[in-house]
Amino acid sequence: MVGLFASPASSTHAIWALWHTMAKSFPEVQPGGSLILAWQVKDKTVLVVGGGEVAAGRILNCLNADAKVKVVCPASGLNAEVAHRVAEKQVTHVDRLFEPSDLDDADMVLVAIDDPAASTVIWKLCKEKKIPANIADVPSECDFYFGSIHRDGPLQIMVSTNGRGPRLAATLRKLIAGSLPPNAGNAIESIGELRGKLRQIAPDAEDSPKRMRWMSKVSDTYKWDELSNLTPEDMENLLLFYPANKVPAIDVLLALRGGNGDLKLLDVFDGSFGFSVGA
Amino acid sequence: MVGLFASPASSTHAIWALWHTMAKSFPEVQPGGSLILAWQVKDKTVLVVGGGEVAAGRILNCLNADAKVKVVCPASGLNAEVAHRVAEKQVTHVDRLFEPSDLDDADMVLVAIDDPAASTVIWKLCKEKKIPANIADVPSECDFYFGSIHRDGPLQIMVSTNGRGPRLAATLRKLIAGSLPPNAGNAIESIGELRGKLRQIAPDAEDSPKRMRWMSKVSDTYKWDELSNLTPEDMENLLLFYPANKVPAIDVLLALRGGNGDLKLLDVFDGSFGFSVGA
Repeated sequence: MVGLFASPASSTHAIWALWHTMAKSFPEVQPGGSLILAWQVKDKTVLVVGGGEVAAGRILNCLNADAKVKVVCPASGLNAEVAHRVAEKQVTHVDRLFEPSDLDDADMVLVAIDDPAASTVIWKLCKEKKIPANIADVPSECDFYFGSIHRDGPLQIMVSTNGRGPRLAATLRKLIAGSLPPNAGNAIESIGELRGKLRQIAPDAEDSPKRMRWMSKVSDTYKWDELSNLTPEDMENLLLFYPANKVPAIDVLLALRGGNGDLKLLDVFDGSFGFSVGA
Repeated sequence: MVGLFASPASSTHAIWALWHTMAKSFPEVQPGGSLILAWQVKDKTVLVVGGGEVAAGRILNCLNADAKVKVVCPASGLNAEVAHRVAEKQVTHVDRLFEPSDLDDADMVLVAIDDPAASTVIWKLCKEKKIPANIADVPSECDFYFGSIHRDGPLQIMVSTNGRGPRLAATLRKLIAGSLPPNAGNAIESIGELRGKLRQIAPDAEDSPKRMRWMSKVSDTYKWDELSNLTPEDMENLLLFYPANKVPAIDVLLALRGGNGDLKLLDVFDGSFGFSVGA
């Protein structure tokens, strides 16, 4: 036997070297971060204790995620924004101080009151009941922190500095918002719609890898503005290419609009996309 | 009585108009999003069921957030990356299939196995025990979703398309990473250090609003590379300006380096920052 595995000793060495090469290719752990998660609170009850400026921000975050928000706070303590949400019936309002029974139907608890002792009592009750909670400005009494969020339709971008620099987080958020493709939100909406239609025509679980590969190909093929301008007709035409696992050039898709009779659809499938159109 | 509040009728009208103007100034609710949160899992036990590619990604996310990760999976089911994490003792490994007792010490559960029935059983157990959980690829069995994360030291940026377009999320993440100030992570590290030092010299809770205002002013005054190049000496000098609630121009700060004798520190405080230096 010659070569790489010539002897047991060098074989071990070779395997060791291979192991090291492979190990290096795995991403290194970067400790000190948070686990950033998109929490699903649709129709879940989020209890907000307090009605000031911080509470107002939390409430908006929760409403943007379709939560049922219950605000516990004496009416005199509501700021203008929270009073507006109450008046518009966007939240339910319990006009008194917190009572432990408020936790009975709470899936998540956010506390923003100027009373550290009361806050700590609520935190401890939440931990007994295993309800995720955030006590504003008390990092040690938080299961999670909030960050600075950019929102554009289905797109959400969250900037966290892990508590180091909230102001820099907001600055970065604005900087990022300014550098995004202008149609990003619409493009994502389109691709989501296409994914839904695809699931209808290829619903089986075993189709999932093929579906995912094709959706990736679509995502990589078109520019942001092209994706955002896809019409329902374009999507129907695009889905014709799924069985063959192909994605046509945008020119082909545009040429197919209005059931263009000049376009020989069979030619499109011969692989010379974009060249056989209107020939 | 004349003017805006001339009669009860027009007074009501005026208040109504004012209310509308104010209401318009409150951010409108944009439903359909998630509640994106930076979950604090430092030293918490995250149970990962499964050891394939998806599990490997989850495990890295958790290790990057300092969680204690327990992986339950027969050794034969571990992919190279997970096997590497086990070999390096970055995670603890339970070499068998899931058992309900695995949940006893779990603060969070992530399931990534190719067995929908078993997954559903684990999900239901988690809900009974009120443990937050994510079953990969089963949106209806998830308290939270993962997104595409950019990491640079203390900075984390998460892109979520709320399930519409994972590929576009990854594309946007890369696009954002390329558009960030090159020193963003270091700058945030610096500002965090400065915040820590400031808390030492002005530790009282009632100083918090002044501290926050001054930190915001510092964040707004310097450029990213200037922040990231602040030395411990610069920070000490900068903190001299906190009592007067001032932030010097960067030139002043640089001129103060090495205990510059030519600099008349008193002149610096006269409000003509940047002009009285080295005169």
